[in-house]
Amino acid sequence: MPKISKKGIDMPASPIRKLTPFADEAKKEGKKIYHLNIGQPDIETPAGMLQALKNINFKVWAYTPSEGIASYRTKLAQYYNKLHYNITANDILVTNGGSEAIIFAMQACLNPGEEIIIPEPFYANYNGFACSSDIVVKPIMSYIENGFGLPPIAEFEKLITEKTKAIAICNPNNPTGYLYSREELEHLKELCLKHDLYLFSDEAYREFCYDGREFISPMHLEGLEEHVVIFDTVSKRYSACGARIGCLITKNTALYQTALKFAQARLSPSLEGQIAAEAAVDTPDSYFQAVSKEYTARRDTLVQGLNAIPGVFCPNPGGAFYVVAQLPIDDADKFCQWMLESFSHHNETVMMAPATGFYSTDGAGKNEVRLAYVLKQEDLKRALECLREALAVYPGRTIS
Amino acid sequence: MPKISKKGIDMPASPIRKLTPFADEAKKEGKKIYHLNIGQPDIETPAGMLQALKNINFKVWAYTPSEGIASYRTKLAQYYNKLHYNITANDILVTNGGSEAIIFAMQACLNPGEEIIIPEPFYANYNGFACSSDIVVKPIMSYIENGFGLPPIAEFEKLITEKTKAIAICNPNNPTGYLYSREELEHLKELCLKHDLYLFSDEAYREFCYDGREFISPMHLEGLEEHVVIFDTVSKRYSACGARIGCLITKNTALYQTALKFAQARLSPSLEGQIAAEAAVDTPDSYFQAVSKEYTARRDTLVQGLNAIPGVFCPNPGGAFYVVAQLPIDDADKFCQWMLESFSHHNETVMMAPATGFYSTDGAGKNEVRLAYVLKQEDLKRALECLREALAVYPGRTIS
Repeated sequence: MPKISKKGIDMPASPIRKLTPFADEAKKEGKKIYHLNIGQPDIETPAGMLQALKNINFKVWAYTPSEGIASYRTKLAQYYNKLHYNITANDILVTNGGSEAIIFAMQACLNPGEEIIIPEPFYANYNGFACSSDIVVKPIMSYIENGFGLPPIAEFEKLITEKTKAIAICNPNNPTGYLYSREELEHLKELCLKHDLYLFSDEAYREFCYDGREFISPMHLEGLEEHVVIFDTVSKRYSACGARIGCLITKNTALYQTALKFAQARLSPSLEGQIAAEAAVDTPDSYFQAVSKEYTARRDTLVQGLNAIPGVFCPNPGGAFYVVAQLPIDDADKFCQWMLESFSHHNETVMMAPATGFYSTDGAGKNEVRLAYVLKQEDLKRALECLREALAVYPGRTIS
Repeated sequence: MPKISKKGIDMPASPIRKLTPFADEAKKEGKKIYHLNIGQPDIETPAGMLQALKNINFKVWAYTPSEGIASYRTKLAQYYNKLHYNITANDILVTNGGSEAIIFAMQACLNPGEEIIIPEPFYANYNGFACSSDIVVKPIMSYIENGFGLPPIAEFEKLITEKTKAIAICNPNNPTGYLYSREELEHLKELCLKHDLYLFSDEAYREFCYDGREFISPMHLEGLEEHVVIFDTVSKRYSACGARIGCLITKNTALYQTALKFAQARLSPSLEGQIAAEAAVDTPDSYFQAVSKEYTARRDTLVQGLNAIPGVFCPNPGGAFYVVAQLPIDDADKFCQWMLESFSHHNETVMMAPATGFYSTDGAGKNEVRLAYVLKQEDLKRALECLREALAVYPGRTIS
């Protein structure tokens, strides 16, 4: 029997999915599970976007250009230029979800063995994309004590070697919800210019900024144009995770042309997905206002509720729809599994993502979990009650 | 300015697209172009498949499981089992087009620097996927004289080293249209068992077999189960290239589980694409009969027409919708460009793909072109007339 490749063996399984068998088992036993473990929002996709899908009128479901349909890219450029990105349709490469944009950028920018610095905790799949691209993630610790703000630039400097090619941020952050400030981005800019590094900015959660906070992108920083690569997706913005339409944006034309070669090999993003995504650009502001209001309320409920549980600490993040909370527990992986296997409160329990899966450093995040506030407030309240009860009786509790 | 990666520089641009600027220029001049250069069929997508897309009734456009929707995989398994593949839904991994299945298989099976043997001419994007996966394609020449049949096994043996991990075929073949016989596949089976190699079989054109010829898959060969990986797609079968729904099939569970990790990193194929593809499995046989009849007639028109042109030789292939023809020309790249730039007949011309782009061996295919018979017969006839006139006056004609 032929062997699996080393890369195939090393490829990390999704940490989010490790607990799925336990959840399936719990469901079989009739337990109700509050799913705070994944970023699948319950928010409805904008009606206009779905209607565009229903209205398709092509007879031949044909390829589109590899870089995406021109009219969609033109419309997308308008969306970004409202946000002062100052780009054209030719700076946008449409991808199969944001995932593909990340893969294209990693492969176009980094040689095998070269390094990318990412503040941790970070989106776990960056590890998978790095593995499949034969590149190395160098994590740099951020801390719950200051809400997971950008680590000091001096810490980045320590990690930079001749192998370092890029820094990646996710802003607002998954899993922490942290929203980077202009000042933090300016510091990253200076660092990238000084060491000639790419700056990857994953902006999947751009539209989810709360309390009137301003979203700042590296695209807003003058003089960094050749260094910046944006990853984006319609998944969260329009609650359209299943459309698999994302994009890579860069004003670095050499890089764009290189990424385009990867895009040409896989031929095309989906036609109908782009048609719907083009319609989505016309989603009225009222949609986002309602969504933002809902998420703000959910976040407040969740963060206040968490901090009201004895021994729990949760910063109040400025964006996305995740929080990372510190719990009085010995081991988040054990605890999250125990919640599914051995605990129930009124026959209900909560599924959370152990934060260990978002850290690259061994042992980090052992007393932290990520919670996605993708459920209605009343469900969040029930989930919080479950969690409070669970922490009171969990055998591995660390703080009495 | 940060550097592009070596992989990014080495990544081949699509050879099919090299001529696009000349085609654009010709169109600007008002020339009508018969596009025989690409595999975008003009055949209508089955109505039931498009209707399923229009009928979508979800409110939240959500992720699906990374391996694909269970009901779709179950239905697909039925399709394959009608063809005696003897598989279950758990052997099928749904991918973003057939392209992604190829990438997953290459990365899961081959280490960087390891080799895959592919009879040439071959689908040009295999080069791109190999480049992005850091693996090496070892071409093995097939010849127009016997219609591009499988090269002798002795020739394969010569290329096999300890770095060889897989053999890949495309059956029926793109670009040659060749349909491999059971005997040829049995020879490949013995070779793969002897040297412990994977056998990748790209079956995008499975439904396009003519003259009552039988389609044989490596899936039909007993004892090779752990070695076989099938790449498939709805693109050609249902003329749904823009749906970007493909799949990887293997009964090798270790390999399946490995490929699944790559799939988990990119989260999910598209929801609506899978819904439509599930409906497509119910496409009535009459659809395929009509399509097959149409393509057979087109092939006959094209092949007979080509062979009637002095100095032209074109084998009569058993499947797909491509032919590779030998022309009395000095250089296919020059000729195809000249057709767009400098030639017209009644203000019409033909766009073809120089076969050089499908060969990995330098200099091979210089007097060959690939023609896709994806146009109506009357257009094919006009295109043939154009080509005949062009060959009569082309300055680089080699046979007088």
